Amino acid sequence: MHKALAATRAKAPLEPFEYDPGPLPHDEIEIKVHSCGICHSDLSMLDNDWQNTKYPFVPGHEAIGTVHAVGEHVKNLTPGQTVGLGWYSRSDNVCRQCLSGDHNLCPNAEQTIVGRFGAFADFVRCHHTWAVPIPPGVDPSKAGPLLCAGITVFNPIVQFGVRPTHRAGVIGIGGLGHLAIAFLNAWGCDVTAFSSSADKEAEARSLGAHRFVNSRDSSKFSAIAGSLDFIISTVNVNLKWSDYIGALAPRGRLHFVGVVPDPVPATVFSLLGAQRSISGTPAGSPATIATMLDFCARHKIAPITEDFPFARANDAMEHLRAGKPRYRIVLQMPR
Amino acid sequence: MHKALAATRAKAPLEPFEYDPGPLPHDEIEIKVHSCGICHSDLSMLDNDWQNTKYPFVPGHEAIGTVHAVGEHVKNLTPGQTVGLGWYSRSDNVCRQCLSGDHNLCPNAEQTIVGRFGAFADFVRCHHTWAVPIPPGVDPSKAGPLLCAGITVFNPIVQFGVRPTHRAGVIGIGGLGHLAIAFLNAWGCDVTAFSSSADKEAEARSLGAHRFVNSRDSSKFSAIAGSLDFIISTVNVNLKWSDYIGALAPRGRLHFVGVVPDPVPATVFSLLGAQRSISGTPAGSPATIATMLDFCARHKIAPITEDFPFARANDAMEHLRAGKPRYRIVLQMPR
Repeated sequence: MHKALAATRAKAPLEPFEYDPGPLPHDEIEIKVHSCGICHSDLSMLDNDWQNTKYPFVPGHEAIGTVHAVGEHVKNLTPGQTVGLGWYSRSDNVCRQCLSGDHNLCPNAEQTIVGRFGAFADFVRCHHTWAVPIPPGVDPSKAGPLLCAGITVFNPIVQFGVRPTHRAGVIGIGGLGHLAIAFLNAWGCDVTAFSSSADKEAEARSLGAHRFVNSRDSSKFSAIAGSLDFIISTVNVNLKWSDYIGALAPRGRLHFVGVVPDPVPATVFSLLGAQRSISGTPAGSPATIATMLDFCARHKIAPITEDFPFARANDAMEHLRAGKPRYRIVLQMPR
Repeated sequence: MHKALAATRAKAPLEPFEYDPGPLPHDEIEIKVHSCGICHSDLSMLDNDWQNTKYPFVPGHEAIGTVHAVGEHVKNLTPGQTVGLGWYSRSDNVCRQCLSGDHNLCPNAEQTIVGRFGAFADFVRCHHTWAVPIPPGVDPSKAGPLLCAGITVFNPIVQFGVRPTHRAGVIGIGGLGHLAIAFLNAWGCDVTAFSSSADKEAEARSLGAHRFVNSRDSSKFSAIAGSLDFIISTVNVNLKWSDYIGALAPRGRLHFVGVVPDPVPATVFSLLGAQRSISGTPAGSPATIATMLDFCARHKIAPITEDFPFARANDAMEHLRAGKPRYRIVLQMPR
């Protein structure tokens, strides 16, 4: 039996929960969980915000652990190896997307906490392609948040060919945004941080931002009009998007990795004259995750985390609900 | 004195108009106009739809003619050469965009009929970079519409790296759309034409479309969901854009070259899961125009045109206003 923490209904506290995972599928592995980051989507799923949660619900999709068992057909991983598991747990590996390396765009992809039991548990399972080895130089105890928050912001930098000569912007300085700033700084870019909290300026600069714009102050946008090649939005609230579109340089892109409540009003006139784009991406593929981990090791980039013991998972969830983490919570399992 | 046709107020008929163009600037050329296509934006400007028209207003920005005179500093063109002039007439040639080859994204670009006198005239002037030589193999008498309609749809195919293996869609089969279908077919793509006129199916197929979708019939979109890599919208009306976003393949792009009245509602959820983009572009740069003309010569692509004599310019404008051209009107000047 696997020992987990689960909510039995929307917004309920997490309670001890045991389940029989059945025989290990031939193409999956079982990970002994050592630590697990907490993502805002764990909360959204717990609350059934997206109307697709099944209860009992076990959160957790930023897991770091060791390979405990491998299915009969698994050749690429061996027990004892340290691996990470993020938002995706399976893809079909036969569709055009998977065969092109875009396993994250697979129409049959399965998410670690959607219709599966997540990593707030002693063990979690996934298809062998989605367990990514943690390379030397990456501290496993802090690496969990890289597997979802990290890859979500790293992925579009790779996908859209952001260059070291580009001027980049990051909207929101939280779990995703603080990593986006660090990545873009190490990538060689000029980095502007946008936040509605004026008191985050010093933090943003210490993370690697070269410039700070208080997003509540529309007048500040005239100074940066037409200047940014790539803006990544990590927030989940509506903003005055026309300000950000206006801040884009010719050929610039306003990119979303956080789901905002209302449609973004894309006025064609504002896109057309200067060849601007609006886009979105989910978390990245296994190959992009591996590339990110190498990049983190080389540039000594690690999430800034607050540790909670597994036994205090409910306190950790409330801390997240209150918007207080600086910047990402990691649950540490008993060893 | 230059002899032109001009409207003296919004929506007025065109009347004979003479003006003194002054001395030829050192970096400009004067073109003797032989023919000039008519674009919907000539009508929008005549009607002051964009509130930036100055009267007397001389339309015409799809001009073909011969170089009549060159300014003192012009080295790249010689009198007698056949050239084309489109939407743009000048750019500053010193900004980062111009120096990068993106003269069309120059913040100081001047448009042929905005604050300048257009090509419904015996002569028209432009900066020497924007007069593009017409290569052998392109029929000058039909080439006018390539200089605006053509380059407007050719440009994004180049800019966004559309590949011969891609499945492409074209919304609207008119002055721009009929050329987009021909270009994408010659580019090697699988081409789907979208039109609200069911009776255009045979025409669309004869132009190079492999598939036709009646855009009024939402049920037809389920069959093509997730299939198109690149959709170009050439219309200037609101459509149910969610149908088209849903038709995009993973990594797909919905691209606008026509200005639609309302903002396109870009729901982040619909972009994010499959890495989709929404974008817009203006007409292309001189280098891209030259590339397009070579491509037209090689693939024997020409606009399908209806000729009107210059003296019947008002009839031609009314024909356009009625949405009747199949597919582009060209005014032929007296020779």
